[in-house]
Amino acid sequence: MKIYGITMGDSSGVGPEILLKCFRSGELQHPVIAYGDIEALAYYNDLLKYGIKLRKITSAAEYQPGPLNVVDLGIMRHEDVRVGQLDGKSGRAAREYVVAATHAVLEHQIAAMITLPMNKEATQISDPNFVGHTELIGNLCGVKDVTIMLASDQLIVTHVTTHVSLKTAIARAKKERICTILRLTTDAVRKLRPNPRIAVAGLNPHAGENGLFGDEERTDIRPAVEWAQSQGMPVEGPFPPDTLFYMAVRKKKFDAIVCMYHDQGHVPLKLLDFEGGVNVALGLPIIRTSVDHGTAFDIAGQGVASGVSLVRALNLAINLSSGSIEP
Amino acid sequence: MKIYGITMGDSSGVGPEILLKCFRSGELQHPVIAYGDIEALAYYNDLLKYGIKLRKITSAAEYQPGPLNVVDLGIMRHEDVRVGQLDGKSGRAAREYVVAATHAVLEHQIAAMITLPMNKEATQISDPNFVGHTELIGNLCGVKDVTIMLASDQLIVTHVTTHVSLKTAIARAKKERICTILRLTTDAVRKLRPNPRIAVAGLNPHAGENGLFGDEERTDIRPAVEWAQSQGMPVEGPFPPDTLFYMAVRKKKFDAIVCMYHDQGHVPLKLLDFEGGVNVALGLPIIRTSVDHGTAFDIAGQGVASGVSLVRALNLAINLSSGSIEP
Repeated sequence: MKIYGITMGDSSGVGPEILLKCFRSGELQHPVIAYGDIEALAYYNDLLKYGIKLRKITSAAEYQPGPLNVVDLGIMRHEDVRVGQLDGKSGRAAREYVVAATHAVLEHQIAAMITLPMNKEATQISDPNFVGHTELIGNLCGVKDVTIMLASDQLIVTHVTTHVSLKTAIARAKKERICTILRLTTDAVRKLRPNPRIAVAGLNPHAGENGLFGDEERTDIRPAVEWAQSQGMPVEGPFPPDTLFYMAVRKKKFDAIVCMYHDQGHVPLKLLDFEGGVNVALGLPIIRTSVDHGTAFDIAGQGVASGVSLVRALNLAINLSSGSIEP
Repeated sequence: MKIYGITMGDSSGVGPEILLKCFRSGELQHPVIAYGDIEALAYYNDLLKYGIKLRKITSAAEYQPGPLNVVDLGIMRHEDVRVGQLDGKSGRAAREYVVAATHAVLEHQIAAMITLPMNKEATQISDPNFVGHTELIGNLCGVKDVTIMLASDQLIVTHVTTHVSLKTAIARAKKERICTILRLTTDAVRKLRPNPRIAVAGLNPHAGENGLFGDEERTDIRPAVEWAQSQGMPVEGPFPPDTLFYMAVRKKKFDAIVCMYHDQGHVPLKLLDFEGGVNVALGLPIIRTSVDHGTAFDIAGQGVASGVSLVRALNLAINLSSGSIEP
């Protein structure tokens, strides 16, 4: 039996309540366990009167159907929970849930991990070098070439770079890195769509207009696409970004777009599907998906945060771990 | 009586037929004259059996209601028209229509000009330095600080830079230039919306995440926003781009977004409204709007190209010239 691990995220944010709400509604249809603090979950369970039975375990091997099984890190006590407030302790705890779940996947105790949101500022109080989930998990797995795939019903995007300045993103849009991302994208999209068509966005307006507005398309992007094609990957481009997203989404010409920088993919995808987007780390030796929203301190504790993204993140992790092509 | 001038664009593309189609359908509800070649228009009028009466004039002063009045440049003959083909002669002619119309607006013969698409490659055969409509008209008007506003029903975007490489766009995202664009944007949006709310996008992912991913927000964008606020402009930001477009379009928090580079605004706007977007030049001493599509050689001559953008471009020019706030 495959078990999926969900990290509950920062206790000040909407992560714990989304986990509880989706567990209670039956939308989490496969065996899941939580990585977090059972007292923090109990806090929200009481606050929102969900009446879920929580069961403390120390590893996935102890899973039993029925209650919500929680691998309890024992960091946050009931009285430590600060709903909607930036808090150093809950920031540090959220990091530990991710560390524990990552080790559990690496040790094959669970089939995949799904992460609920951390708060970067809160975690940086105890870990000033913390950049994000993907980088943390990449470090724990000992890999460098990781990137983010965002998936919604309408579009899949991957990124040559993510959490770096736009200036650095341009400097890193080099053939070798682009080839790596084309390979990672092809591998992932082939697990999610039959006969996928993958487009590569240009870096410059109009994809450089034949070198008139920048030459990265000529020096690096096109050579990377040609290499990928020579390897049999279903990749085309580079295309002018402003028409490409329209062609992919409205005209259904492509299943996925490889983007040169964070906002090239994030702006259109969040515009299309703000609540339901799912984030997948590519390049890891493990399967990890994530909700595509933040801690949303402003609405925490009210039980109103949407669980759509968590349900989709779990389903995507299940598909990726089974190699199914039904999204 | 106010008369509006429409340049017919490259004769190989969809410009002439869109002009004829919209004139025939009565969708061009104000007095308009065409700047172009009457024989090229006659060619499409015959080809598509539109039966429109064309009337050759030499200046707007000769306008008469009833037929389509055409300021005839006398460049393209009937036999010169190459439907759907890149052609140096039609590229040069398209440039001359714009020059003629620009002079007509500068001399107050017409109230505003509306441009149909040129083909950059075709025009560069005779004018290798040709970059685009906006730059050409800016030169003719003797102004340097011009930029593009794109407007659809759902969103208005303006740009700190447009047709330059992304690397150059970053180098030019300086306080002085941003202040200019905030002023131009405020002036234009105030003519189109009552009590507008204008947001400024960051340049970097998460708007730099407090300097972690780039510092242009701190050194240039925020100081420009603070200056604009001190001048009474309804401007806020910088905001993380990936949530800003969602907040503006889906949550209706803002009427317009000032973008730091071409694709930041063009990707979401074309995704939302590919056919109906309208392009407005800001910073000119004259009013000029444009359709937001290209020559579309692949469908030219079939009468199938959409006229939605031309109708909206005319209506927007009328609103801008009257100062009306009803878009």
